[in-house]
Amino acid sequence: MPVNYHPPTPEQLLPVAGVTLGTAAGRIKNWSRDDVILVSLDQGSRAAGVFTRNRFCAAPVIVCREHLANGQITRALVINAGNANAGTGQGGVDDARACCAAVARALDCAEYEVLPFSTGVIMERLPVERIVAAVPKCVAALSPSGWDAAMRAIMTTDTVPKAASCRLDIDGVPVTITGIAKGAGMIAPNMATMLGFVATDAPVEGLLLGELAASLAAASFNRITIDGDTSTNDSFVLVATGKAAMPPIVRSDDPRLRSLHDALELVAVQLAQAIVRDGEGATKFITIVVDGGRDDGECDRVARAIADSPLVKTAFFASDPNLGRIVCAIGNAAIEDLDPGCVSFWLDDVLVVADGGRAVSYREEDGKRVMEQAEIGIRVALGRGGATATVWTCDLSHGYVTINADYRS
Amino acid sequence: MPVNYHPPTPEQLLPVAGVTLGTAAGRIKNWSRDDVILVSLDQGSRAAGVFTRNRFCAAPVIVCREHLANGQITRALVINAGNANAGTGQGGVDDARACCAAVARALDCAEYEVLPFSTGVIMERLPVERIVAAVPKCVAALSPSGWDAAMRAIMTTDTVPKAASCRLDIDGVPVTITGIAKGAGMIAPNMATMLGFVATDAPVEGLLLGELAASLAAASFNRITIDGDTSTNDSFVLVATGKAAMPPIVRSDDPRLRSLHDALELVAVQLAQAIVRDGEGATKFITIVVDGGRDDGECDRVARAIADSPLVKTAFFASDPNLGRIVCAIGNAAIEDLDPGCVSFWLDDVLVVADGGRAVSYREEDGKRVMEQAEIGIRVALGRGGATATVWTCDLSHGYVTINADYRS
Repeated sequence: MPVNYHPPTPEQLLPVAGVTLGTAAGRIKNWSRDDVILVSLDQGSRAAGVFTRNRFCAAPVIVCREHLANGQITRALVINAGNANAGTGQGGVDDARACCAAVARALDCAEYEVLPFSTGVIMERLPVERIVAAVPKCVAALSPSGWDAAMRAIMTTDTVPKAASCRLDIDGVPVTITGIAKGAGMIAPNMATMLGFVATDAPVEGLLLGELAASLAAASFNRITIDGDTSTNDSFVLVATGKAAMPPIVRSDDPRLRSLHDALELVAVQLAQAIVRDGEGATKFITIVVDGGRDDGECDRVARAIADSPLVKTAFFASDPNLGRIVCAIGNAAIEDLDPGCVSFWLDDVLVVADGGRAVSYREEDGKRVMEQAEIGIRVALGRGGATATVWTCDLSHGYVTINADYRS
Repeated sequence: MPVNYHPPTPEQLLPVAGVTLGTAAGRIKNWSRDDVILVSLDQGSRAAGVFTRNRFCAAPVIVCREHLANGQITRALVINAGNANAGTGQGGVDDARACCAAVARALDCAEYEVLPFSTGVIMERLPVERIVAAVPKCVAALSPSGWDAAMRAIMTTDTVPKAASCRLDIDGVPVTITGIAKGAGMIAPNMATMLGFVATDAPVEGLLLGELAASLAAASFNRITIDGDTSTNDSFVLVATGKAAMPPIVRSDDPRLRSLHDALELVAVQLAQAIVRDGEGATKFITIVVDGGRDDGECDRVARAIADSPLVKTAFFASDPNLGRIVCAIGNAAIEDLDPGCVSFWLDDVLVVADGGRAVSYREEDGKRVMEQAEIGIRVALGRGGATATVWTCDLSHGYVTINADYRS
């Protein structure tokens, strides 16, 4: 059960002009549900992506990077669940290309205008023929309201489908944003990967779309951690179809960009947080804000040291306001010249540590009360500068061990 | 239950000339067992230490560093279990000094010749008066055969006491080495800390003892990881009493040093491995060897990325030879220019991945057979150089979550 997350209803998922989606059952694994998704984009659409930094990146990531390097004109995304096509060598790359070629034939576009994505078991060859066979069925199913089916078809160990949608008004012109995502561990047992796709009908051109995608990923998907592992397949793609009735946004100082960015970030953050809320075995959703650092990097390191410490995570599971574990994690964040005497931290509004020591006002029952909540905020003040960073995470429960210790099935 | 570890019998713990140990019940916590340990060292003894890099280091670590900076002449160690004296600010430092002062009075030595150590709950003030009151009782109990009582009195969440002993012959002169250690998590819930003390009667002088301590720590205690956290109190101290009947070892090219180093390393590695074998909730003992790296640092990063991945650790618990998780961890070890196509790995003698892909010869049942063992070896070959690194770790089980989710009691 995810922590305070309910997927949107089909009516809440707004169609994006220029985007149609179709799904089909490719039987990638031994299941009967849909597991192949085709996203068709009207002519003039552009895409930009942010991909895993894992050195063992998956074949579809290699092909995506290559196709996006050919220019940002993108006509389709083809996605499968059940097999990650990772650790599969040159054969895996050929397989990913074969999927793109099948889509290119079906939609009459160039192979490099198709981006492939896979999620599932690692180190097994992709059943290409089943995906190729599913493509015509996906084409037949293409619909502007296909978001609901798509968010379900990309699930693996997710317990709920994840999507978000919003509409905004830019200079009197309505603009729509809709996105879907999957993921429950940074990498899950056999079902790997975080995937996120966000589309808007706003016209964003050139390098700006890439900058926008990087900025959104930095503010959303790159701010979450469930178990500290980065999957071989992690991908986030931003699509702009340009169908909204306004002149293209081409300059970074265009005032319309700010509104669009904020709305896109809202959607991306909702998707990213949904992944943490559905984290494997999660019972708590935790927001860690570190401020007062010299630079964002050191704030980020402190936030992740707390978020990724198994001892801190089990303390959250136990609703135990264990001061020592959080203090110890802060001390482990590799800030060589950190002065512990300047560090304070709060659990929600409860001051726990002031100037490096237990706060005089702190009462254990106050900390306990906050730790028992399903949503917990930690704020750490480093007292050495003006930088800040936020990370979202969940607790480490018996559920996590059970899910990940289950033999692959 | 530790994995294949049995503590030595009292007869196996060899006295070290120049070292006597006494313990007493200080009632630091609500328990009746001995929890204060005094180690008295004859005149002429020297000590060197390696301490935690955690920025929130404990008060006794601050005082140890200060006292060792005054010269290496050391006459006593005073250790307590049940309270870490960490995160206690200047008051904690004063408390640690007060313990040293009490020992200095009792043994008629200088305060800076006493090294203090604490392990236990963080962020609570040390009950100094109880430790001071226990010191005369410890003095009365001082005995060359006090090692057995000492290894028991420093335990916190340890399920077994940990010690190792050996005797060697250097140029016809018998030399003895005995050590004790405690620790079950890098930091445990309220009971923090890894502590290790090794004494020898060999005469090692000057800077050489410090170099020896650093080298031993690098080959033993710094090669283990249970949950990736570095405690506020971690300390390793090497003592040389100089009582063995031989001229002092003063030069690093002294051929006797090699024999002594090897024997000391044997003892330190036994102690370090005992900590992992008694790791919180551990059911498997895992040796990770990474070779073929450009430098030791990158081999170490890969070994730790595997050892600290919760997904890899739960796979060990489940006896699941999950290729993807280990491959993913290798890819996450921050080697920017790693060529996955050159990477291979083995589970014991079973080749699992060759040249970045699943080995043709690999059969899942062979991997499964190795993973079911209580002792597992992983060897990763990076194929890019001649450097190597070894890390010892354990699995992540329900036991770990249960131990660490228990509310502090």
